[in-house]
Amino acid sequence: MSAEIFNTDYKLALNAALSIEVFHNFSLVHDDIMDDAPLRRGNQTVHEKWDVNTGILSGDAMLIMAYQLFENYEPEVFRDLAKLFSKTALEVCEGQQYDVDFENRDDVTIPEYLKMIEFKTAVLVGAAMQMGAIVARASEVEQQGIYSFGRNLGIAFQLQDDYLDAFGDPKTFGKQVGGDIIENKKTFLYLKALEFSEAEQQQELQDLFSISPTDSNDKVQSVKNLFLSSGAADATTKEIENYTKQAFSVLETLDISTDKKNLLKAFGENLMTRKV
Amino acid sequence: MSAEIFNTDYKLALNAALSIEVFHNFSLVHDDIMDDAPLRRGNQTVHEKWDVNTGILSGDAMLIMAYQLFENYEPEVFRDLAKLFSKTALEVCEGQQYDVDFENRDDVTIPEYLKMIEFKTAVLVGAAMQMGAIVARASEVEQQGIYSFGRNLGIAFQLQDDYLDAFGDPKTFGKQVGGDIIENKKTFLYLKALEFSEAEQQQELQDLFSISPTDSNDKVQSVKNLFLSSGAADATTKEIENYTKQAFSVLETLDISTDKKNLLKAFGENLMTRKV
Repeated sequence: MSAEIFNTDYKLALNAALSIEVFHNFSLVHDDIMDDAPLRRGNQTVHEKWDVNTGILSGDAMLIMAYQLFENYEPEVFRDLAKLFSKTALEVCEGQQYDVDFENRDDVTIPEYLKMIEFKTAVLVGAAMQMGAIVARASEVEQQGIYSFGRNLGIAFQLQDDYLDAFGDPKTFGKQVGGDIIENKKTFLYLKALEFSEAEQQQELQDLFSISPTDSNDKVQSVKNLFLSSGAADATTKEIENYTKQAFSVLETLDISTDKKNLLKAFGENLMTRKV
Repeated sequence: MSAEIFNTDYKLALNAALSIEVFHNFSLVHDDIMDDAPLRRGNQTVHEKWDVNTGILSGDAMLIMAYQLFENYEPEVFRDLAKLFSKTALEVCEGQQYDVDFENRDDVTIPEYLKMIEFKTAVLVGAAMQMGAIVARASEVEQQGIYSFGRNLGIAFQLQDDYLDAFGDPKTFGKQVGGDIIENKKTFLYLKALEFSEAEQQQELQDLFSISPTDSNDKVQSVKNLFLSSGAADATTKEIENYTKQAFSVLETLDISTDKKNLLKAFGENLMTRKV
């Protein structure tokens, strides 16, 4: 879509798009080892189906193959794609390290959390969109613009993910509603609730978040009530709107037709009103 | 050295050389996880000093950083370096997978073993030398020639490593002499000894290679005797010579001065007469 926005046949962008997809799956294979996750998309994870060594090694191979997908582009496009890819891939690794570190930390701040989801998720959305612009030989300013659109939308998307995990409709939300709460994950909702609460509610929330994931029958509703009463739920909705608006405001600066701006807006709005 | 052979300042090749070095260390970090190795170069391995997750993630980051080292080259050189790097890196992963697989197989053939060491070790020597030629903008024929020189020398080097592990001088060999034997590693010496032996000696060798690494006091000398009496030791020496000669014969086809050929020969001979 990004290539088309800059007047280039989307087919030219397919190898770059595929590279993003292979990279994303590489990161899932290695993350699943780190998180000791048995399932992914309803199937056994790679290290579970074979073994950890196979998971490490096939992940490594996928990372290399993601670079190989740039090889059919001409040299300058190849270099621009690979440079952006490397920068982004390192940030995703850094985001994953933050995520691992945060599990054992009780003093994670909101800016740190936002940095983590920016690196772990949002930069890849930004990079994917910029790659379309690179393939289309768009100017540096246009490239930065579409990157910024994707990055802001990516942060909004991830905050939305946190929100839906607690307040999504079980009928339409793909994952278990309350999963993050059961796993004691320090999401934006949790950090905001702590920030907004008095000492008593803070203690209550922290106590609820010390309950083991295997023993959490009544926990989800209590935590959700605290998320609502503290104002954290509203604050999260607002933050999602802020990042979405920031994404849209970047669009205004781009020298593309109104039709194309509306296309990108529709994409963003669709992403932000999703229930799944 | 390879850049200088093709009349280019070695300084231009330093980033490419560093990329090979970072890649090599990436592969050691991940291999050490797979082999559950506690020590590397006399220090704790990464996953031992921190944890497995840190080992996986910092290895991933090193692989990406190896690519980043090509970014200062102009686009065509960048693409040529990155393409060769990706192809080689995938082969190294494949070689490591063979190595892992071979541990649980009793039917490894000599050609399979040679393929494994070619992929795990030799292609990286070849790629390192070709990168010097790429940076120097040498012709495709010259690039292939110097790659072939490095690849053949790399196989000879690895066979030499197998040989020295059994027959090296404990005073000068850096590692524990007999280490491969204690670990029941199916090296070239072992496979050749099986090939050359009668049923009775085959059985003896296989019995010795079923002794646990933790209980192997008298095993090393008995195995070395079988390596010698079967003719495997001589056959290995000959194979090392063959690959070294093949490397040197490629040099003859290169359009470089005799001085430079002699420099490369001296490098090869030095590598092949090493005792450490």
